[in-house]
Amino acid sequence: MTGHLSVIGLGPGTSDQVTPEASRHLAAAEQLFGYGPYLDRLTLVASQRRVASDNREELGRADAALTAAAAGARVAIVSGGDPGVFAMAAAVCEAVEHGPEEWRTVDISIVPGITAMLAVAARIGAPLGHDFCAISLSDNLKPWETVLTRLRAAASAGFVIALYNPVSRARPWQLDAALDLLRAELPPETPIVFGRAAGRADERLAVIRLDEARGDMADMATCLIIGTAETRIVVRPGLPALVYAPRGASR
Amino acid sequence: MTGHLSVIGLGPGTSDQVTPEASRHLAAAEQLFGYGPYLDRLTLVASQRRVASDNREELGRADAALTAAAAGARVAIVSGGDPGVFAMAAAVCEAVEHGPEEWRTVDISIVPGITAMLAVAARIGAPLGHDFCAISLSDNLKPWETVLTRLRAAASAGFVIALYNPVSRARPWQLDAALDLLRAELPPETPIVFGRAAGRADERLAVIRLDEARGDMADMATCLIIGTAETRIVVRPGLPALVYAPRGASR
Repeated sequence: MTGHLSVIGLGPGTSDQVTPEASRHLAAAEQLFGYGPYLDRLTLVASQRRVASDNREELGRADAALTAAAAGARVAIVSGGDPGVFAMAAAVCEAVEHGPEEWRTVDISIVPGITAMLAVAARIGAPLGHDFCAISLSDNLKPWETVLTRLRAAASAGFVIALYNPVSRARPWQLDAALDLLRAELPPETPIVFGRAAGRADERLAVIRLDEARGDMADMATCLIIGTAETRIVVRPGLPALVYAPRGASR
Repeated sequence: MTGHLSVIGLGPGTSDQVTPEASRHLAAAEQLFGYGPYLDRLTLVASQRRVASDNREELGRADAALTAAAAGARVAIVSGGDPGVFAMAAAVCEAVEHGPEEWRTVDISIVPGITAMLAVAARIGAPLGHDFCAISLSDNLKPWETVLTRLRAAASAGFVIALYNPVSRARPWQLDAALDLLRAELPPETPIVFGRAAGRADERLAVIRLDEARGDMADMATCLIIGTAETRIVVRPGLPALVYAPRGASR
């Protein structure tokens, strides 16, 4: 007997940005796995079982959810943002590859969501308006040297850079190191958008020049969008400035 | 008198992936501007005015919409996918920067949507599971040499690459040129996902090895996701293979 596993993106945090597809998969689930604060966003019915785990226990969570689905349950794993962007979809695929043969027979649906960089960008204009990349600053799973190589390659080739997981308690120094590297590649006035909780009541948005940006301006829930030499700021009377990357940007 | 302009992402194509926020902005609009096929997805009421224009007339469309909003109308511009990813949000910001002063007083909302690479990735596993970039192959607005520089930088630094606008009638040769460049940087067996109309009735998905990929496998609505040397394919009995980029991928 085989159940079903849905890996669901909840978007940046308001129910207004949860797609109807995601809501349908949430309603059909008998067991819902996820990081506690993501599960806290949901209103469950009495028959739905909530299984919260720590943010860093991605593979364990994937294993538990696949075990339940392989035993016949309708299971959901929830992610903030999009499950395919530094979130649970890759952990589930990894678990299927290395797990017991019966996990390969579980029907899996990945349900996309609005990822943080799109939500932050929308609140400020169009800072991702030309070629861009997304880099996780976490070195839990890759060498720090790889992060630096990618930052340097992206900045020197003219990509806008969205930074996910910019800091954590265990690595408070990383964002400052990344900013130092970027200061060697980009003009001092390059705009950086610091965005947190986009669209939510506790939203925080700031646009800071690269030469004034500091690591302590971000926490683990902040998404940074680092502009290029071509990023523009449009000042507006009585309205927030628009920040955008011109469609035609070249080096 | 000033109206309001919403720049709305409709997602990849099914109403199931239009957020409640987008639906609310669509319902509130008196005039809806956009590329015809995007407007065709909507069910308008008699009082709503539909203003279709060609896909390449982005700035003209932004000007017309801003003119209407500055005159007091509630206006929407619709984009497929997300308006901030190779779509209308940057064109609107550009128009505001270079247009008449009163356009700077128009209240503008950008409403994010599920962009093509997230929708395609979700249908096949987690091919964007580690650091990735998004590149538009169109050279309407940037030199072709810039495209090649960015492709080379991204592939050599280990980014997954999502390619938007891979071909058009005016430039049928570009995708083959891009694939040739990538063949010099990546192993021949690197998986490439060709995704089109993700989630729709006419969806087409294929996973092709880099050494067998050809430009005529894509059209202008295809989004390609080019893996790295670390991208994995998980074969499953009776189910489509999963393609994913391990979270811990390093060079």
